[in-house]
Amino acid sequence: MTRPVIAAMRARLDAGNASHEALVTQALEGAQLPAAEHVFTRLYTDAALAAARHADAARKAGVQLAPLAGLPVSVKDLYDVAGETTLAGSIVRRSAAPASQDSVAVQRLRAQGAAIVGKTNMTEFAFSGVGINPHYGTPRNPADPEIARIPGGSSSGAAVSVALGLSVVGLGSDTGGSIRIPAALCGIVGFKSTQARTPRTGAFPLSQTLDTVCAMARSVEDCLVADAALADAPLAVRRRPLQGLRLAVPSTLMFDGIDRPTARAFQRAVSKLSAAGAQVVDITLAELAEVAKINAPGGFSPVEAAAVHRATIAEHRADYDSRVAARIDLGMTVSAADYITMQQRRADWIARMEGALQGFDALLCPTVPIAAPAIAALATDEAFFQANGMLLRNTFAINFLDGCSFSLPCHDAGELPAGLMLSSVRGDDARLAAVALAVEAALG
Amino acid sequence: MTRPVIAAMRARLDAGNASHEALVTQALEGAQLPAAEHVFTRLYTDAALAAARHADAARKAGVQLAPLAGLPVSVKDLYDVAGETTLAGSIVRRSAAPASQDSVAVQRLRAQGAAIVGKTNMTEFAFSGVGINPHYGTPRNPADPEIARIPGGSSSGAAVSVALGLSVVGLGSDTGGSIRIPAALCGIVGFKSTQARTPRTGAFPLSQTLDTVCAMARSVEDCLVADAALADAPLAVRRRPLQGLRLAVPSTLMFDGIDRPTARAFQRAVSKLSAAGAQVVDITLAELAEVAKINAPGGFSPVEAAAVHRATIAEHRADYDSRVAARIDLGMTVSAADYITMQQRRADWIARMEGALQGFDALLCPTVPIAAPAIAALATDEAFFQANGMLLRNTFAINFLDGCSFSLPCHDAGELPAGLMLSSVRGDDARLAAVALAVEAALG
Repeated sequence: MTRPVIAAMRARLDAGNASHEALVTQALEGAQLPAAEHVFTRLYTDAALAAARHADAARKAGVQLAPLAGLPVSVKDLYDVAGETTLAGSIVRRSAAPASQDSVAVQRLRAQGAAIVGKTNMTEFAFSGVGINPHYGTPRNPADPEIARIPGGSSSGAAVSVALGLSVVGLGSDTGGSIRIPAALCGIVGFKSTQARTPRTGAFPLSQTLDTVCAMARSVEDCLVADAALADAPLAVRRRPLQGLRLAVPSTLMFDGIDRPTARAFQRAVSKLSAAGAQVVDITLAELAEVAKINAPGGFSPVEAAAVHRATIAEHRADYDSRVAARIDLGMTVSAADYITMQQRRADWIARMEGALQGFDALLCPTVPIAAPAIAALATDEAFFQANGMLLRNTFAINFLDGCSFSLPCHDAGELPAGLMLSSVRGDDARLAAVALAVEAALG
Repeated sequence: MTRPVIAAMRARLDAGNASHEALVTQALEGAQLPAAEHVFTRLYTDAALAAARHADAARKAGVQLAPLAGLPVSVKDLYDVAGETTLAGSIVRRSAAPASQDSVAVQRLRAQGAAIVGKTNMTEFAFSGVGINPHYGTPRNPADPEIARIPGGSSSGAAVSVALGLSVVGLGSDTGGSIRIPAALCGIVGFKSTQARTPRTGAFPLSQTLDTVCAMARSVEDCLVADAALADAPLAVRRRPLQGLRLAVPSTLMFDGIDRPTARAFQRAVSKLSAAGAQVVDITLAELAEVAKINAPGGFSPVEAAAVHRATIAEHRADYDSRVAARIDLGMTVSAADYITMQQRRADWIARMEGALQGFDALLCPTVPIAAPAIAALATDEAFFQANGMLLRNTFAINFLDGCSFSLPCHDAGELPAGLMLSSVRGDDARLAAVALAVEAALG
């Protein structure tokens, strides 16, 4: 169940029923509780409280505050914060130089007066969709009180920080699904905007081709508040009814190997949308089967990560998560000619996909085809990589499209979270946001 | 000695002292003379005459004609013309499918009503600065009636077609100097615009990173007519006096190994510019020494050409110019990680160069440090590659900068042609054009 947390908080603040200081104090205290273990790699207690007190004082003085002013937000461990070494979930970077200035994303959050409560844990170098981190521990998915399940990754701590109410916005990043996968598995909303909307300066890179600076929150509306803060210009979203929207459901790839609870949740969501007047159209979209083939020579993330890491990994391999190192290794031997061919085939594929999606308001599928596995079930590399492949498959197709995409919760109370992914083509973010608002309302 | 040929022709046409048909007929007849041997790989006699007659008829009917309407222009052999197989100076592509539509550059020339007289010869696949073609012969440099000298390349036929007066504009391309080198060696003007000014659709690629669609002509003004036809929007050139312009002369790289006639021509040009009030400033610009180091893993052209050619060359190596195949081979074994690192180092280098060039109106150096060698002197691969390296070195630095650049003749009558290269940073084309007009006037 999604709800616009930011507007609700601001209403309470406007009515004098809350203070920024109290909200941020509550978030910082929550970050110390057992449920939040491994969620933060660093807390900014003093700075967050200072931002909150400043918001309280400014509000009292009649200043019109920015939407995120004095509200708790979290920042993924891969964003530069001036004066700190950016670790990106690694230990190998402990000896790296501190950042000389804030990343642009952090600058923009600070420009709104946001209270940055801490840096959130993540998959080492953002290189898996699972969220397990051998150095800093793995945040536990808050959806299941009994079994310790993965939160999803790579923005693992970001998702849990939002799901636990410790931040209204979790700044993360999405290269192959790193916003949408943990959002889906933890039952919140993730918005992977079109890559070009947000500058990446000061974000530790995984794939220069695919990395996207974006965020997750408790509702579509809250995601749009975050997007407006992070992007060069806010989206001009024209709200529209679900009635008459054309939503395409592809039969290729996206439902392969889906588990029964996820399939049920998806079908229930589609029924609700149809009942609310959306036109749900089954299409083949055979192009989706080509993604893996085009990527076969090595994939953008392994190749581009190899360029980033090859010198360091040659000297300090033992300090890497072996599963991350294994994926970087895959990129080491790829030839430049194969890489360029991959780029060209991708461009051709994007053009064909854009053609196939014309006339639809969004593409509809499960964000991930399975519910969050238990952490213990992924102890072997084989199980880990098998799960990782399943988790990333659907979301990655939209990164490959250079598209935009929301993940919305579509499970019922008492079920493990499941995500409904709404996607569209490059630059179609404003229309997709309107669709996401309408879909969210219909899902109830 | 440069002169604005297009305006002069239009004045004669306006005065009724010439007809388009006569001008085009003259060009087509000239193309049959011995001096033009190997210049064209194909003539469009009927189509060119049709365009000329149409211009005559339209002019008579009072239609305001576009600047290139009914004037003879030539098109480098690598531009798609609908219905023809684009050979790009090769024989290996003879079995390739014909182009389904005109390249954008050809479309834009046709949109002006230009009389395209023919396709011009070039280095195979545009992959050398020399201009020797083993399949279609080598156009002879018209500057020397005694010794058969190279025209420079890769746009060899384009330059000779303009130098002989067989076209007012030679559409070529510039990846490492392919417009400016033959312009300098044949004594005409070449303008390599900033790459992003002109679309490359339908131009057979050498390097996707560096290829630039641009042209050469008999004067700066004529080059700007061509640029206005080819680019998305014409440059807004504000003419300015030479007085007070700051021109930087770098001591690094650009003068290494210069021959005495070229050095004398350059010094004479600098003296004229100083006398006319330009402020000529010697700078070190040590960054120029880094170009070769950054490119050392293989260079953009070999790597990107390898991606284009590897399948064909594996099957039909014997059909390639062995010197071209040798350069493509260099790119085959480069790793994607090296290629990406090369991109990143280039971006960093460009930023530093842009900083170093701030406060200057142009960078001044010889286009090529040597006069055109005799064709016979380049019979061995060793001599060929040595000359090729010298010919490309200065011009390539500006491609590597993603900059813009003019080559203007600066030799005296009776000397072999020498080029003065005026360059600036990415997107500075309008200012550079104004500088080039002022410099051209001062050179006399």
